[in-house]
Amino acid sequence: MILEAAVLQVRTGEESAFEEAMVKAAPVIARSPGYRQHGLQRCIETKGRYLLLVQWENLEAHTVGFRQSPAFAEWRSIIGPYFASAPSVEHYEAVLEWPRP
Amino acid sequence: MILEAAVLQVRTGEESAFEEAMVKAAPVIARSPGYRQHGLQRCIETKGRYLLLVQWENLEAHTVGFRQSPAFAEWRSIIGPYFASAPSVEHYEAVLEWPRP
Repeated sequence: MILEAAVLQVRTGEESAFEEAMVKAAPVIARSPGYRQHGLQRCIETKGRYLLLVQWENLEAHTVGFRQSPAFAEWRSIIGPYFASAPSVEHYEAVLEWPRP
Repeated sequence: MILEAAVLQVRTGEESAFEEAMVKAAPVIARSPGYRQHGLQRCIETKGRYLLLVQWENLEAHTVGFRQSPAFAEWRSIIGPYFASAPSVEHYEAVLEWPRP
């Protein structure tokens, strides 16, 4: 299991429209093979900043399976217009979960 | 519910010791009022980089309840020695969870 963590900066004043677009775009990413779940979080300290967390079965499910599919172009066409800058994307693997599962 | 997202950079070569320290420190944060759960993630792209995600009942449970308690000093005394730089900490509130709960 891999966690994709993307920090997104949205254009000032377009936060509500972006949040609606993310709801519309959710089924597009959710259909991708190896997708598990995702969530969008709004930053309290910095207006327009969001943290997108996506669980993938493995790294390639995101970097190859989704990124190189037509679904990615569709996903970006829905949410991309709201970005103020290019997203910062990193991948993580779990070290510790507490309370222990 | 509030998500604390902290990016931690650990000194080169001390990654394993840091991960062990995080296991040792887990009960210290977990005892704090308003704590819900937390996880530690290791970055795939950048060695020594970690993402700490902590769920709190509300913002004050972290910023006041934990940060201003003796437990925070204890937590930092266990994990702080491994930090290469000051952690970057932000708080987020959930906008979207998918599949819908």
